[in-house]
Amino acid sequence: MTGFVTFVSAGPGDPDLLTVKAVKALGRADAILFDDLSSGPILALAKPGADLVGVGKRAGRASPKQDHVSRLLVDYALTGVHVVRLKSGDSGIFGRLEEELTAVRAAGIACEIIPGVTSASAAAAAAGIPLTRRTHAQRVQFITAADTTGNLPPGLNLPALADPQATTVIYMGKRTFPALAEALIAHGLPPDTPALLAEAVSTPEQVLHRSTVAELARTLEEERSPLPGLILVGNLAAGA
Amino acid sequence: MTGFVTFVSAGPGDPDLLTVKAVKALGRADAILFDDLSSGPILALAKPGADLVGVGKRAGRASPKQDHVSRLLVDYALTGVHVVRLKSGDSGIFGRLEEELTAVRAAGIACEIIPGVTSASAAAAAAGIPLTRRTHAQRVQFITAADTTGNLPPGLNLPALADPQATTVIYMGKRTFPALAEALIAHGLPPDTPALLAEAVSTPEQVLHRSTVAELARTLEEERSPLPGLILVGNLAAGA
Repeated sequence: MTGFVTFVSAGPGDPDLLTVKAVKALGRADAILFDDLSSGPILALAKPGADLVGVGKRAGRASPKQDHVSRLLVDYALTGVHVVRLKSGDSGIFGRLEEELTAVRAAGIACEIIPGVTSASAAAAAAGIPLTRRTHAQRVQFITAADTTGNLPPGLNLPALADPQATTVIYMGKRTFPALAEALIAHGLPPDTPALLAEAVSTPEQVLHRSTVAELARTLEEERSPLPGLILVGNLAAGA
Repeated sequence: MTGFVTFVSAGPGDPDLLTVKAVKALGRADAILFDDLSSGPILALAKPGADLVGVGKRAGRASPKQDHVSRLLVDYALTGVHVVRLKSGDSGIFGRLEEELTAVRAAGIACEIIPGVTSASAAAAAAGIPLTRRTHAQRVQFITAADTTGNLPPGLNLPALADPQATTVIYMGKRTFPALAEALIAHGLPPDTPALLAEAVSTPEQVLHRSTVAELARTLEEERSPLPGLILVGNLAAGA
């Protein structure tokens, strides 16, 4: 008797940005493992009596190690129930999906992945701009700018990231943006390249701040709100 | 009396991969302008009596020029109705969103954008792999490999695209992949880099084909199905 794991992408925050498939999976799950207390309105979609298990730092606990989360996920599924592992945004984009997938498969548990709206798409939509532009932004690239220690990860492909003809989206990059901006400018990105900071996208706390790379670096050097944010850099279209 | 335009991202094809917000918008619209006949099950979400207007090549007409679509969109909205402009995937990613946004705003019509699941996320989920990996694929990038003439677009950043540490997703690239693969290999991408061709993602016709860059280039040189497809290249994780 083995259970089943559904990795559900929760989207950027607004419960209406869940997919229909995600809503159905949440309504069927016997247990939901989630990272973030802000998933409140999303967890309301669980069926009555489902186990709701916070496993992330933002769920009010000390952040459990990744292998602890994987073990918990496997342990739940091995009791024979249907477990949803809820991950923000699109689970395949900076969602630490691989570690948990590997653990689930190694335990012989069947699983599926429900893709979702990644925060970059939601941020651009909120700002009224596309991520790609026919002649001005033919490439879009996503990176995370914080490794497990919170610092700029080693091995970033700075020439690729400094290309002014690409839209670059930086996940979890508020703290390291001043250092990243300096490196990008050193690799040829014009300091006045447009930049958009999008915080708490699609939630009632949403804040959008249009700036330039150099200015945003100064702003984030001086003060940072505690809201989760992502940063778009490039030849951004005029917004709403 | 001006109407309102909602740009609705339809996701990769499966109606269950629409967001809840998109479903609501479709159910409220007085008119829906769509590109693709395969949106059949999605158009079933329209309210009774809504105008359903095919504007794309795949809707069975000669492909109207982009400015004709924009004009039609504006003309509909100026009659005072709520118009949904349905676009596949995430409308902000290779969706020609900017041209239509600009036309709608120039006409003084209010609009909103509902983000969606881009095909890259759906393809990776279907293959059971993440788009990013903690140490093996810290950057993910999307390009389209066909310009308006169907050829490889000029000005591709080949060094950025040939980075084996990135996951590169090529939209609309089946026809030009042999030429692109040759260029990437010339810029240092190992020919045996894993590649995944994902066709008709999330639909009943879905086909996933795992290969390498060099092999897939040979395969697509020899034969191509008419199914829409996208190609993932990089240090892809082991899948399901």
